Amino acid sequence: MATPSVYLDNLIKRLTKLPGIGPRSASRLAFHMLNMKTDEVDALTSAMEAVKLNIKECTECGGISDGGRCTVCEDLSRDRSVICIVAEPRDMLTLEATGSFSGVYHVLRGLISPLDGIGPDDIKIDSLLKRCEEIKPEEVIIALNPTIEGDATTLYISRALTPMGIKITRIARGLPVGADLEFADRATIIRSFEGRSLV
Amino acid sequence: MATPSVYLDNLIKRLTKLPGIGPRSASRLAFHMLNMKTDEVDALTSAMEAVKLNIKECTECGGISDGGRCTVCEDLSRDRSVICIVAEPRDMLTLEATGSFSGVYHVLRGLISPLDGIGPDDIKIDSLLKRCEEIKPEEVIIALNPTIEGDATTLYISRALTPMGIKITRIARGLPVGADLEFADRATIIRSFEGRSLV
Repeated sequence: MATPSVYLDNLIKRLTKLPGIGPRSASRLAFHMLNMKTDEVDALTSAMEAVKLNIKECTECGGISDGGRCTVCEDLSRDRSVICIVAEPRDMLTLEATGSFSGVYHVLRGLISPLDGIGPDDIKIDSLLKRCEEIKPEEVIIALNPTIEGDATTLYISRALTPMGIKITRIARGLPVGADLEFADRATIIRSFEGRSLV
Repeated sequence: MATPSVYLDNLIKRLTKLPGIGPRSASRLAFHMLNMKTDEVDALTSAMEAVKLNIKECTECGGISDGGRCTVCEDLSRDRSVICIVAEPRDMLTLEATGSFSGVYHVLRGLISPLDGIGPDDIKIDSLLKRCEEIKPEEVIIALNPTIEGDATTLYISRALTPMGIKITRIARGLPVGADLEFADRATIIRSFEGRSLV
């Protein structure tokens, strides 16, 4: 729906490109911004520009950092004998929020996806292998999404690391906690049987 | 959840203040912006600033305009004998999107709300009365939300306009199309009975 303002139309169009923002949310946000104080809008736009300008890649794990190494890699209390491999910096934060992992991370910054023309050289697998050779971890936990791309990347990494004699594990696939067996899909049920454990 | 970046934390905090954006959406948006091209981020922030800078109030109806009168007020084919009163510029666009109204609008820019200290002088009722005296419309349709504030404002306006001999109507309150009587609240059912019409 066109509004009486080309400026508002342009903002709505741009907001609609963001993930999870449909035309209705975009319109609501645009009108909200119209009513925001100018200094609030300035603070928001500055925050957006600052993120682009200042956030760098952690020189050790490939996660995000305001310069040099990230807070996890800087933390001397972390267990460097366990490396958890994730696809994106966001996944690292999701795992950190659970507070259940005390090792370090390696962020691939993507997944192998031949259909999209993304091969092993396009993601941070080289630096993973180099890091594993240097610090010789006892275990590498692969925490990638259970998708075709995640499985392909898992297979590639496990083949590359096997000759180093490192223990390679992957996070369990099965029913989410609180889920109902009746509504689970076939692939998940099969995986949950394969991954069964003693009670 | 704190991220390893003060810049990212700041952006997430500011995004969370926007309507309909919770902590998870804010985090998702912030990471998306981190991955956007710099010129895309620039275009988005410029669009936000432009909306604040360039959008003015329509000098006739109080709606939004890029300068002078809005597109509806500029449109000579609109029927000036019917004025539809809405609370916010957004409501005007919502009604325009239905394509079912051919008159002009008056945007109050708020509703009377004694609890929030908003009285008749704080919204555009004065300019409405002045406009009605000038153009002497045949009908004024009050299209405010069916809330306490909307009802209070409706009552105030209808009392102020009655002496001018203008026909004053308000949009119907009743069951939404597709709704189930079983799940409707008592007040809505009572209103839908009051507003019943011949079939």
